[in-house]
Amino acid sequence: MKEAVTLKQIAEKLGISVTAVSKALKDYPDISKKTKKLVRKTAKELNYKPNTFAVNLRTKESKTIGLIIPVIVHHFFSNVIKGIIAQAEKKGYLVIILQSNESYELEKKQLDLLMSQRVDGIIISLANGTSNFSHLNDIIAQEKPLVMFDKIAKVVKCSKVIIDDRKAAYMATQHLIDTGCKRIAHFRGSLLPQNSIDRFLGYKKALEDNNMVFDPALVYLCECGDMSFEEGQNNAKKLLNDHNDVDGIFINTDLVAIGAMTEFNKQGIKIPDDISIVGFSNWFMASVISPSLTTIDQPGYQMGKAAFKQLFKEIKAAKKNKTVEPEVITLDTALVKRDSTK
Amino acid sequence: MKEAVTLKQIAEKLGISVTAVSKALKDYPDISKKTKKLVRKTAKELNYKPNTFAVNLRTKESKTIGLIIPVIVHHFFSNVIKGIIAQAEKKGYLVIILQSNESYELEKKQLDLLMSQRVDGIIISLANGTSNFSHLNDIIAQEKPLVMFDKIAKVVKCSKVIIDDRKAAYMATQHLIDTGCKRIAHFRGSLLPQNSIDRFLGYKKALEDNNMVFDPALVYLCECGDMSFEEGQNNAKKLLNDHNDVDGIFINTDLVAIGAMTEFNKQGIKIPDDISIVGFSNWFMASVISPSLTTIDQPGYQMGKAAFKQLFKEIKAAKKNKTVEPEVITLDTALVKRDSTK
Repeated sequence: MKEAVTLKQIAEKLGISVTAVSKALKDYPDISKKTKKLVRKTAKELNYKPNTFAVNLRTKESKTIGLIIPVIVHHFFSNVIKGIIAQAEKKGYLVIILQSNESYELEKKQLDLLMSQRVDGIIISLANGTSNFSHLNDIIAQEKPLVMFDKIAKVVKCSKVIIDDRKAAYMATQHLIDTGCKRIAHFRGSLLPQNSIDRFLGYKKALEDNNMVFDPALVYLCECGDMSFEEGQNNAKKLLNDHNDVDGIFINTDLVAIGAMTEFNKQGIKIPDDISIVGFSNWFMASVISPSLTTIDQPGYQMGKAAFKQLFKEIKAAKKNKTVEPEVITLDTALVKRDSTK
Repeated sequence: MKEAVTLKQIAEKLGISVTAVSKALKDYPDISKKTKKLVRKTAKELNYKPNTFAVNLRTKESKTIGLIIPVIVHHFFSNVIKGIIAQAEKKGYLVIILQSNESYELEKKQLDLLMSQRVDGIIISLANGTSNFSHLNDIIAQEKPLVMFDKIAKVVKCSKVIIDDRKAAYMATQHLIDTGCKRIAHFRGSLLPQNSIDRFLGYKKALEDNNMVFDPALVYLCECGDMSFEEGQNNAKKLLNDHNDVDGIFINTDLVAIGAMTEFNKQGIKIPDDISIVGFSNWFMASVISPSLTTIDQPGYQMGKAAFKQLFKEIKAAKKNKTVEPEVITLDTALVKRDSTK
């Protein structure tokens, strides 16, 4: 690799001191306009780039942030990534992205990696496998700005960007009830994280408020750990086998819902005539499948933007040795009515 | 932000010299086992992390690479990102990701940003708007390892990971011919980049080899610059208006194909009875829509892995001041037959 051009080379070429070159590039008043012009011209000709590592040692800033997400190939998360990058770039920050594959072990290792890279802050959405939070508390103990989004841990004292999952799930279930469903199942995904718990609680509350019986046998867990198309297919098969009186399902991710719909279509079960379905997240796909999927719109891009904005605020405060009280930012969701419900 | 623990603090705590601490952590033979153990224990207690910036100044490595892609929320590109990150992590590299939004100006700015961040190498898929390549030649002139994938520029002398777009498009068109289509249109996307050109040429060649008339009026360009669902809808409308004798379309991206299919479904045009459709890329969505979409499978994850592997080879060579002859790595594609063709 060609050696990077240094201040010294510019100085040698012009026959002036390194200090003069450095001051000229920083626009110090004690350097003549003529010299400044000459230095800038030479720097450009030689393709000089300031050494950010050297700069970083001085300012203790890397101007990079780390992002750990469970999965990249996922409509919601790729929207979040897009939002974070867009906002970070505006403020001159670069984003290092890591994928935890829903693994607690990997998530822990990746946090260490980001810390040793001296990122200025970290944004994270937890792996489904994460039930111990000491790795996150370590980050906070080191006063490194940390923001969680979507899959959070309530007990960790940092800022969070979330939606009101309980309210959204309530809205989804209420819609099934309002459109005539009498026996409503729930595909809840994994036991953890918090959003899975909250969506389940919202579903349960809606049933209770409408004087409908809550039947734990109608709550289907995700056995494989990832919320996949196949999980939707498998749970749909089981449901048809065990509870063919079910006439509505609230499913906690669109991808799983689409898997279930594919299975119902295959078995000749009519949606919404036989079973109504509400998904969660509003993947693009939800609008183009047949029938189109009623779902909860989860604002991924906005969540990404909000998460970076909060992180940036905390990075700025940390530079001044100030601490910021953790904030919980809750974004709005909406029910998108389509053809999978009556 | 809490100051990072330094070698000096460890030295002070133990009452030994900074040099001794540094040597102990690096396992030098002239330091006793007992001291090494003590230093490691203290480093752990104080939560010492080696300062990578300082390390970087010495080794001139940042252990980060840059990735510039046109769009993140895109099934193919998110698979590529996943492949790059997976492979990079294996080799201890972190990946900074930037999105050019198909803009040449932004792409140029982002390359500068990555260079000033002193990444060890760069992987890029070009924006549709890029027709001038001096920003890429600058990177090569500075001997910074550079690998292009998918949307490449043939004239830029760096390694490339591609598929044989011409062959794949030929295969797609031949399938339409083999299943009885007599008048085949092509939605080609933008005039640039290279893969758009090659897919068009593959389509044309297949018609010629089968003694079918090539009619330029049946080639629909993308007017908006991005290959979107809406573009598919708009082109489908135009096609129905102008050429209702068309009985097959080869469309150069699944998302556009799905837009077109949605419009055909809306207007009561039967797929594949009235019009057969072949897409390109094999997005997940292609398998779940009705009818399911026949398409070309483009191995995004493998492309990402191959791109990082090649970059890593070039980074290693560059460290030894060696240069590597640019390679063109061509990955296999396959036709996935589904229900949108007869």
